[in-house]
Amino acid sequence: MRLRHKPHALDLIAAHPQFVVADPQKGKWKEEFGNNNPIHIEVGTGRGRFIYEMAKANPHINYIGIEKFSSVVVDALQKLIDEEVPNLKLLNKDAKDLTVFFEDGEINRVYLNFSDPWPKARHEKRRLTYKSFLQNYEQVLAEGGELHFKTDNQGLFEYSLMSFSQYGMPLKFLSLDLHNSDFEGNIMTEYEEKFSSRGSRIYRVEAKFPLRTAEAGQTAEQAAVLV
Amino acid sequence: MRLRHKPHALDLIAAHPQFVVADPQKGKWKEEFGNNNPIHIEVGTGRGRFIYEMAKANPHINYIGIEKFSSVVVDALQKLIDEEVPNLKLLNKDAKDLTVFFEDGEINRVYLNFSDPWPKARHEKRRLTYKSFLQNYEQVLAEGGELHFKTDNQGLFEYSLMSFSQYGMPLKFLSLDLHNSDFEGNIMTEYEEKFSSRGSRIYRVEAKFPLRTAEAGQTAEQAAVLV
Ligand SMILES: C[S@@+](CC[C@H](N)C(=O)[O-])C[C@H]1O[C@@H](n2cnc3c(N)ncnc32)[C@H](O)[C@@H]1O
Ligand SMILES: C[S@@+](CC[C@H](N)C(=O)[O-])C[C@H]1O[C@@H](n2cnc3c(N)ncnc32)[C@H](O)[C@@H]1O
Repeated sequence: MRLRHKPHALDLIAAHPQFVVADPQKGKWKEEFGNNNPIHIEVGTGRGRFIYEMAKANPHINYIGIEKFSSVVVDALQKLIDEEVPNLKLLNKDAKDLTVFFEDGEINRVYLNFSDPWPKARHEKRRLTYKSFLQNYEQVLAEGGELHFKTDNQGLFEYSLMSFSQYGMPLKFLSLDLHNSDFEGNIMTEYEEKFSSRGSRIYRVEAKFPLRTAEAGQTAEQAAVLV
Repeated sequence: MRLRHKPHALDLIAAHPQFVVADPQKGKWKEEFGNNNPIHIEVGTGRGRFIYEMAKANPHINYIGIEKFSSVVVDALQKLIDEEVPNLKLLNKDAKDLTVFFEDGEINRVYLNFSDPWPKARHEKRRLTYKSFLQNYEQVLAEGGELHFKTDNQGLFEYSLMSFSQYGMPLKFLSLDLHNSDFEGNIMTEYEEKFSSRGSRIYRVEAKFPLRTAEAGQTAEQAAVLV
């Protein structure tokens, strides 16, 4: 994501705390939205087209777009300023701190779209599908929570399928060519529009987290040792 | 696989029991080969190029190519008649009876190459990566045994990745474009040669079976219920 110099980004964000939540209160997201609807988050929202369109199309689901760069999230904010959508909030934060912003089980779905590929092996830990990130998603997700992932990047997709399966996550609705599949209602992200118009294949998968054991506190990785 | 009329196929097979094992003895494969080397099988060998080249390249591994059609396996047999390879045997049998031919744990690796795709949903159970086949592979494989799978068929590959992960199998060395990857020493099958020369992408994955639990007799599926 190219970082343009946007001196007013932080001011604009600070002026709209009803859209970009400044001080997220763990465990209080239902209050923040004012209802008990399920909450879906997108990690690495970028300029926000996907999450904005999803929120408009699905008014009975609450959405939170998380983007670490203020110069980028400001474009998502601008969409909300132009046309308000009550079931969408933004968070200008780094997803590595997910468990600081969300109570365990507070979330119902995680979207990852066109995440930075970090192709070098020594940067593996930065990939948003690396196991430490999966642990965070699993912690904030409610039982049966899912991860939905799209990318054009072949290497990141190969890596992610391996990472998910090694974490014990069953894969479902896997497409190796989304735009030539029978998947209906796809909402394109900014990157998806750009890369697919250049002829890149789009990959997509839904992965579930393994069901938890009766023993509270046992993680999937501990449980997997039994298998 | 087009079935040509080959009246002499059965005669030729019957005349070479040292190459096409007529009456496989469960638990006796090390005796059949006359050594204790690991045993790798290919299910759906076709005309045998892959398994024949693998056997020549890896003399300290024993190979068994399993092909249900006599009219097809006879071409693999012809290669052995032309140039004998001591560590390769053929089986003119249906892989659904794998546990009849092999003792539990007698095998060390299963190869599937360009398996029939059976694209219709109602034929799912015929796919060689359907869970009943996975159960058979798991049963005849020794602890830590692997399944190596190549195909050009996008739908079958998508299905198989889902099937493996849903069976609890971690995926490794996944390639969504084998011929443009850094995988070394690839040996092409007859189908691979044909489809890649027409520009098809070749997909490849290695999947492990989950480690067994301490409780003898517990299958991966039973164990997975715990997770
Ligand atoms: C390649 S862009 C894709 C943006 C958008 N999802 C799309 O598909 O158009 C990836 C975005 O993820 C953001 N990002 C990467 N790591 C992040 C993290 N740890 N926390 C929050 N945002 C992150 C980047 O700043 C960037 O805007
Ligand atoms: C599409 S061909 C591929 C042949 C070869 N592996 C290749 O890549 O060139 C699939 C082969 O698998 C064989 N086959 C399919 N199901 C089988 C089964 N249940 N047992 C044994 N062979 C089977 C078919 O007869 C056919 O020869």
